[in-house]
Amino acid sequence: MKKGVFITLEGPDGSGKSTIIKLVEGYLSEKGIDYISTREPGGINIAEQIRNVILDKSNTAMDGRCEALLYAASRRQHLAERVIPALKEGKVVICDRFVDSSLAYQGYARGLGIDEVMQINEFAIEGYMPDFTLYLDVEPEVGLERIAKNKDREVNRLDLEKIDFHKRVREGYFILLEKYSNRIRKVDANQPIEKVFDSIKKILNDEIEL
Amino acid sequence: MKKGVFITLEGPDGSGKSTIIKLVEGYLSEKGIDYISTREPGGINIAEQIRNVILDKSNTAMDGRCEALLYAASRRQHLAERVIPALKEGKVVICDRFVDSSLAYQGYARGLGIDEVMQINEFAIEGYMPDFTLYLDVEPEVGLERIAKNKDREVNRLDLEKIDFHKRVREGYFILLEKYSNRIRKVDANQPIEKVFDSIKKILNDEIEL
Repeated sequence: MKKGVFITLEGPDGSGKSTIIKLVEGYLSEKGIDYISTREPGGINIAEQIRNVILDKSNTAMDGRCEALLYAASRRQHLAERVIPALKEGKVVICDRFVDSSLAYQGYARGLGIDEVMQINEFAIEGYMPDFTLYLDVEPEVGLERIAKNKDREVNRLDLEKIDFHKRVREGYFILLEKYSNRIRKVDANQPIEKVFDSIKKILNDEIEL
Repeated sequence: MKKGVFITLEGPDGSGKSTIIKLVEGYLSEKGIDYISTREPGGINIAEQIRNVILDKSNTAMDGRCEALLYAASRRQHLAERVIPALKEGKVVICDRFVDSSLAYQGYARGLGIDEVMQINEFAIEGYMPDFTLYLDVEPEVGLERIAKNKDREVNRLDLEKIDFHKRVREGYFILLEKYSNRIRKVDANQPIEKVFDSIKKILNDEIEL
């Protein structure tokens, strides 16, 4: 490999993304691949400060477009300080969520518009789109059940109320699958985790010639 | 007037902008106009928090695109919380600097590209462009001399080094004058302040039918 490979993982909470990332890390280590695994804000000081503004619970007046611009700003800084240097050193970069999350969650599910949110992200990423993206697809009901199990509690009223939102997020990802059919690889994450990981290993072997 | 009028003031430091704004405020009060006078972040809590990230002296690693996105985010929140409500109430809004500053300073003088910076700002302002803009044009040397006088000190080495940057900012504004010839009104601010204010009164009388 002459240059780095930029891989992003996408999918809703409950899709098994965190478990899969740990398995992928182990697999790449086993194969002797030089990689970093990261997620925004990734310990980057400026990106963390921006996230604090986004996540501050007292900021109830935050406008949706302001929030989208802050996510793009945080993404840019993390990309500039962490992702781009690693790619320039020829490393494989695994990033847990990237631009597609903004497009599915804010662009589509929150209604700001996929194209509009893409525009500000194009400014932020300056051509650094992922080489490929693994999208872990899961039925919203299955995903929410997994989250509930993780936390040792029953699915509650709030989780149920949110199902409509999760359904919209998934619709958003489906639109992206069409739009970026060359880049995004859909993986059926309703299956047991071992089967999901088998599918992913096949894709990795294929895409980065392990 | 059925709806509000959105007026922005632009120009480099040393163009007399602050003095002119005070005079405009007095003039509008005299005429019994219902107005607000503001500048970003304008006391808006979220916008202030964003500015703190931009201006934090320890954030030396901040990438130029991250900074531009943060300015756009701060602008959006100030617009949503302060400017749009006043315009909806039919008020005249005077805003000290707005989108043109980002275009001239970051888009042109810092080299990020006027069109690129405009794209993220279009997302931020969602069509709320100023009805008209007063651009106070001043020779960089005259502007810097005024700043120096204000601070009771001689023009120092740093001020002189910055002249090239201020020249580029002015070139940026000239490009905007061409691009937005219907919106931006150039005022010669090399003149004494009374003459500058006379020109501005004429424009105000003309534009908002005082």
